[in-house]
Formats: sequence, structure tokens, C-alpha cells
Amino acid sequence: MPDNTTAVVAFQGEVGAYSEQAAYEYFGPEAATLPCLNFEDVFQAVQQGKCSHGILPIENSLAGSIHHNYDLLLQSGLQIVGEYYLRISHCLMVLPGASLEDLRRVYSHPQALAQCQNHLRQMNLEAMPAADTAGSASMVSRENDLSQAALASRRAAQVYHLNILREQMEDDPANYTRFLIVCLPDKRPDFPAQLNDFKTSVVISLNNQPGALFKALSVFALRDIDLTKIESRPIPGKPWEYMFYIDFAGSVQEETCQRALTHLDELSATFRLLGWYPRQPPSIVQHSG
Amino acid sequence: MPDNTTAVVAFQGEVGAYSEQAAYEYFGPEAATLPCLNFEDVFQAVQQGKCSHGILPIENSLAGSIHHNYDLLLQSGLQIVGEYYLRISHCLMVLPGASLEDLRRVYSHPQALAQCQNHLRQMNLEAMPAADTAGSASMVSRENDLSQAALASRRAAQVYHLNILREQMEDDPANYTRFLIVCLPDKRPDFPAQLNDFKTSVVISLNNQPGALFKALSVFALRDIDLTKIESRPIPGKPWEYMFYIDFAGSVQEETCQRALTHLDELSATFRLLGWYPRQPPSIVQHSG
Repeated sequence: MPDNTTAVVAFQGEVGAYSEQAAYEYFGPEAATLPCLNFEDVFQAVQQGKCSHGILPIENSLAGSIHHNYDLLLQSGLQIVGEYYLRISHCLMVLPGASLEDLRRVYSHPQALAQCQNHLRQMNLEAMPAADTAGSASMVSRENDLSQAALASRRAAQVYHLNILREQMEDDPANYTRFLIVCLPDKRPDFPAQLNDFKTSVVISLNNQPGALFKALSVFALRDIDLTKIESRPIPGKPWEYMFYIDFAGSVQEETCQRALTHLDELSATFRLLGWYPRQPPSIVQHSG
Repeated sequence: MPDNTTAVVAFQGEVGAYSEQAAYEYFGPEAATLPCLNFEDVFQAVQQGKCSHGILPIENSLAGSIHHNYDLLLQSGLQIVGEYYLRISHCLMVLPGASLEDLRRVYSHPQALAQCQNHLRQMNLEAMPAADTAGSASMVSRENDLSQAALASRRAAQVYHLNILREQMEDDPANYTRFLIVCLPDKRPDFPAQLNDFKTSVVISLNNQPGALFKALSVFALRDIDLTKIESRPIPGKPWEYMFYIDFAGSVQEETCQRALTHLDELSATFRLLGWYPRQPPSIVQHSG
């Protein structure tokens, strides 16, 4: 679906991060990737034309939506052109030749360590905090100590030439992250005409009146348009005023959706179209490891 | 507002964690607290009667809602009886006698380090990942090395006898966390009769039909009841089916709200009342450091 031949994709994190794995799964192995220190840098790399696309985690099934990336999306003016669901499977990786008996300490980001804590306890391994998952894999590779392991993505094991002893170390298997693919508005692809399963993302704010949200949602209900996400967020510094992130099935190429958006704009205090993009089929949401 | 004389409050993290600071700010200095390894342990401590209350982060202004704690709340059957907004102010703390010139390395949870990265860069300090904020303060205190500092809560500095060199090290000041206070259903307090500003929290699921959410929200709009939060969440293993977290202004002690809840139950596939509690005034949301 994406144009793989020219994609250069900015992501946050080190080489081997889950975001990089998502970039390759989405764009295919021909894509080039650019690691960025933080999310702001991802947006900048795309805005300055250093990269054709950025890939951003926006929602995790356990940790919720990443509001900060919505803020950056609004500020940047970049458009969403795709989504991808990645099953987060923490792999236990060691130096070639190392075995379970050698292992003592496991390095990773504290959130990954927490998500695997039952497994680590059963295996009698000491959890060691690190700045990120991929960086732990890189460190294990460099330090050449058979008693050290990392919890990171399968991609990190490839990149840093480590062996995966176990996959799916996480205690709760329902752990996936939704990524958004963004690009400059004038670089939006023309989606093939036969595609008809789209999502559209908008952000609105509403005046603080009972029923304001109900009226806003009527623009979808009156047209039988399916909502796929809705989330309120307090507006900093304006107690009791809210922004709403809304995703719905359909694209601005369909007249019904176009009319719904015009109607929504009329009912909202502020209105921003973040983009429309092919909806990822549910089979991929079920995709394992 | 809460009964301070008997409160024993379970929280996740080490002594000095932000959750513990929130517990003391909410319950007052007379409260006793119990540190727990993970969120599951917080629920267990309350269910088993070891603690009168639990305090749980449920939503951060930058990182979003913590879905995992909603899951545990649903499983546990505990009731929400209060909410508290804590401004997250990362303090830079050092050994007594240490000064900025001595400093080289700053320890904290990677998320706290990331939130302060511009400040740390300006001050030319090396960011060192640790398992949690309070644990870093404890370590700095123990290791007695003047070149080491921690980023943690003001409470952590008190507990581990460190000096605060700077407060509000975070780059984005709009950083606050909403905590929920939970207890056993039969231990619900009787709120004073003069209190009339309440919130109620419910979780519902809806059948996958366009307009289902619109119908559900009509129960509030028809009665001029103000929504203060709405958030959809995919149900794991059931693509295109959603749960909704909803908070609204009012309590089950008011007949209008009681009727709205009965109506909502009628329109929902599943329905759970999580609790009602005094709404925190907006002035506290604005509260700084």
C-alpha cells in the first residue's frame, strides 16, 4: 500500500526500537529509517524534508493514548496518511553462545521490565533499568558479558546480533501499540480507487455547554457514520473546557463524510482535520508477535 | 474532606513516589501509607483490608489515561471515592553540601529524564536511567557521592534527606496527574449533605452499531448533565467493539443522575458504576508545584 521505493521514515528511539520495527513492517524492508532523539525531532525531520514520513506511537492498549504526540501533530500541520498496529512482544535476547544458565541480569526500559515482571521473577533474573529497550540490546552486545540480557524488539536482536532465548516475555499478551504514519500535506499519496475502507481523524474543541458533545456527535449519527475512537482531554489552563480526538470510518473523498465534517466544523469552537488513511484490517490487530 | 484519622493508603512505588505525595496532599500528614510493588498489589492491599484506601494514577496530561488501572478497577470491584490532581514538578535533589558545580550525573525514571531533557542539556548533566524517581533519590542518599543527583518529588527529598537545588525541572509545565482514591464498596464514606459538586464514573460497552454511542450520550444530553470525560477503548480480541470510560457531573444521590444511569444501563451491552465522589475544584487543577 505505501510507496516503499522512496520512503525514508523518521522514528523516535535508537536503531532497533519498536517504532523502527513498526516502520519496517509497514513500509517493507526496502524503506530507510532515521532514528531521532525525541518526538519533536521526528516532526522536524519530516517538516524539513529530511524524511518522507514519520512514524509515531499514538496509543498503547495498556498505557492509553500519548497526548503529547497529538499536541505535536496539531502544532506541526503534518497529515496522517496511515496507521499500523504492532503487537508489542518483548524478546529476551543474549549474546551468541549464552544460555539461560549463564543469565543473571536483564536490562530494559522500566516499563518493559514491569510488563515482564512475573516472567523475570519466575526465571530468577534481576531487572536492571535502562533508558530504552533498543539501547539495552546495544549495550549487551557491546559489553560481551554472558550473564547479561536485554528485553527488546525482535528487530533489536537482528540489529545487534543477539540470540532470542524467548519471545513474548510480557505477562499480559494484549499489548499492542497503534502507530500513525505522517507526512507533509502536499506529499499525501493518491490512494488507489478500489480502496474503500478508510479512517479519518479530527480534533475539535467545544464550548462548555451541556449537550455540546452530543450535538457534535449527531453529525455522525445522522449519517450512519461509525466512530472508531473518541477521547476527551482537558485544555491546559482552561478548566472544564475540552478537546476531543475523534476517528471515524470513511474519508473526505466520500460526500457523506465531507458533509459531516462541514457540519462538525459548524458546531465546534475549533476544528482540525488531521488526515484520512486506509483503515488497518482487524486481522492485523489480532496479529501475534 | 476525607477522614484523615484512620486512613491507611496503599500506593504503587517506593516511599517518596509521586503517588505517595498525592496521598499525603489528599489525606493530610496524619495518614499512613503503604508502598506496593505494583498496581495489582495496591488493589489487593485494599481488598484484603490491610489498607483503608488505595491511590492510583489514572490519567496524565502528557501521557494520557492509564488503561491498565481501569482494567484492575473493573476486576477488583473497588469503588472510587475521591479524585486528586497533582502537579508533577520534578525536583533536582542532591546531598546536603553538594552544589551545582559538583554535579555530573542525574538519576531518574527515563520518562522523568525525558520530560526534563532540555534543562538537563543546558546544565550539562548526564541523564542516568533508574527504575523509578523515588528509588533514584534513595540511591543518591545512600551512595554519598557529591556528583550525583536525582529527579524526583519534593516528598522524596524530605524522606531521603536531600536538598532541592531546583524545582520544576520539567520542560513542559502543563504536567499533572489525576489520581483516583478507591476503597471497598461497604467502606464508602457518607459525604456531608452540604456538598453538591460531585462526579460519577461509569464504564459501559456498546454493541457495534453506528449511532450506539450517540444514543448512549442522549441519556446525559436529555437531562442537561455535563460530561467531564469520555474515552473509547477497543475491547481486546473483539475488533470494532469498544468500552467507554465516562465521567459526568453529579452523583447517584441526585434523582436526575439516578435516572440517567438507569437509562444508560438500558442502552448499554454492559454497564458498571465505578463510584461517585466530590469533584475537585478547578483551582486545584491550576495548583502549582
